[in-house]
Amino acid sequence: MTATPNDGSQPGLAPSGRKIIYDENGKPCRSCNTLLDFQLLTGKVTTPKVQKVADTTSKPDTYAQVDPPDVELLGRSSWTLLHSIAAKYPKKPNEKQKSEMSQFMTIFSHVYPCWWCAKDFELFIRANAPKVNSRDELGKWVCEAHNDVNRKLGKPIFDCNLWENRWINGWD
Amino acid sequence: MTATPNDGSQPGLAPSGRKIIYDENGKPCRSCNTLLDFQLLTGKVTTPKVQKVADTTSKPDTYAQVDPPDVELLGRSSWTLLHSIAAKYPKKPNEKQKSEMSQFMTIFSHVYPCWWCAKDFELFIRANAPKVNSRDELGKWVCEAHNDVNRKLGKPIFDCNLWENRWINGWD
Repeated sequence: MTATPNDGSQPGLAPSGRKIIYDENGKPCRSCNTLLDFQLLTGKVTTPKVQKVADTTSKPDTYAQVDPPDVELLGRSSWTLLHSIAAKYPKKPNEKQKSEMSQFMTIFSHVYPCWWCAKDFELFIRANAPKVNSRDELGKWVCEAHNDVNRKLGKPIFDCNLWENRWINGWD
Repeated sequence: MTATPNDGSQPGLAPSGRKIIYDENGKPCRSCNTLLDFQLLTGKVTTPKVQKVADTTSKPDTYAQVDPPDVELLGRSSWTLLHSIAAKYPKKPNEKQKSEMSQFMTIFSHVYPCWWCAKDFELFIRANAPKVNSRDELGKWVCEAHNDVNRKLGKPIFDCNLWENRWINGWD
């Protein structure tokens, strides 16, 4: 959960001065770089000057006293992680990867901090075992799990055929 | 990852109209209720009128076209989840709970969407096996893992003796 900052003066560095992180396909990795770096590297935005991150002297040296997350922040954070995990899951996972992903989702339903929500997720998993045979299968399974919650909360239902736009490719 | 909304006219309902969710100690559960409901229920704020959630007619029926998260949003989301998981981990976990938590952290380091960050977390886990014998042990272990990343990014180091303020109790 880190990315290596650098001094911005060497090749292989993004406009912010951080090291550029690539995916296995040789393209800049969206979930490994900052949004601005990713956009600049992929030509989605152009700007002549970007603030470097190397200068940390102006950063505070202590943390702000932030309170623990409520159910909504926790929910948003967790869906962001789960969908993103699906987005990077192999297209052709091996047996170990399939087994680990099934385990991960099951344990997730045991340890999720909102116990009430965790029970719901556990029930969903019992009725709909995690689909782990491919990235697309997993991405749609997480999308359906999220829609199951959306339905209960009266929130809009997401079209799971578009899950790659939301969680891998973007919309433009 | 849900909470049951209700019509706000019955006992057991929070000011927003959602059902109040309690912890096993009988107090309102912070990670199961919205921040405002939690604050109102625990007397931390008082306000005579709160908008009910039951009326969903004004909500959009489609999702906004949001792009996938970058490394920073993904990092914030993931730390929010991991610290919160530690905050709800049992004070005296049984053997199954210990084993599942160790597995969860290990698999997390395999499936985390930023592969570069995942490798770092995997190395951290190899050098510092997850400490799962109690809530306090796990909470401090996650805090140290987070500080390991903070150090690399030149961010402030959090005092892990205060982890319960940040992730369980709040500061006031």
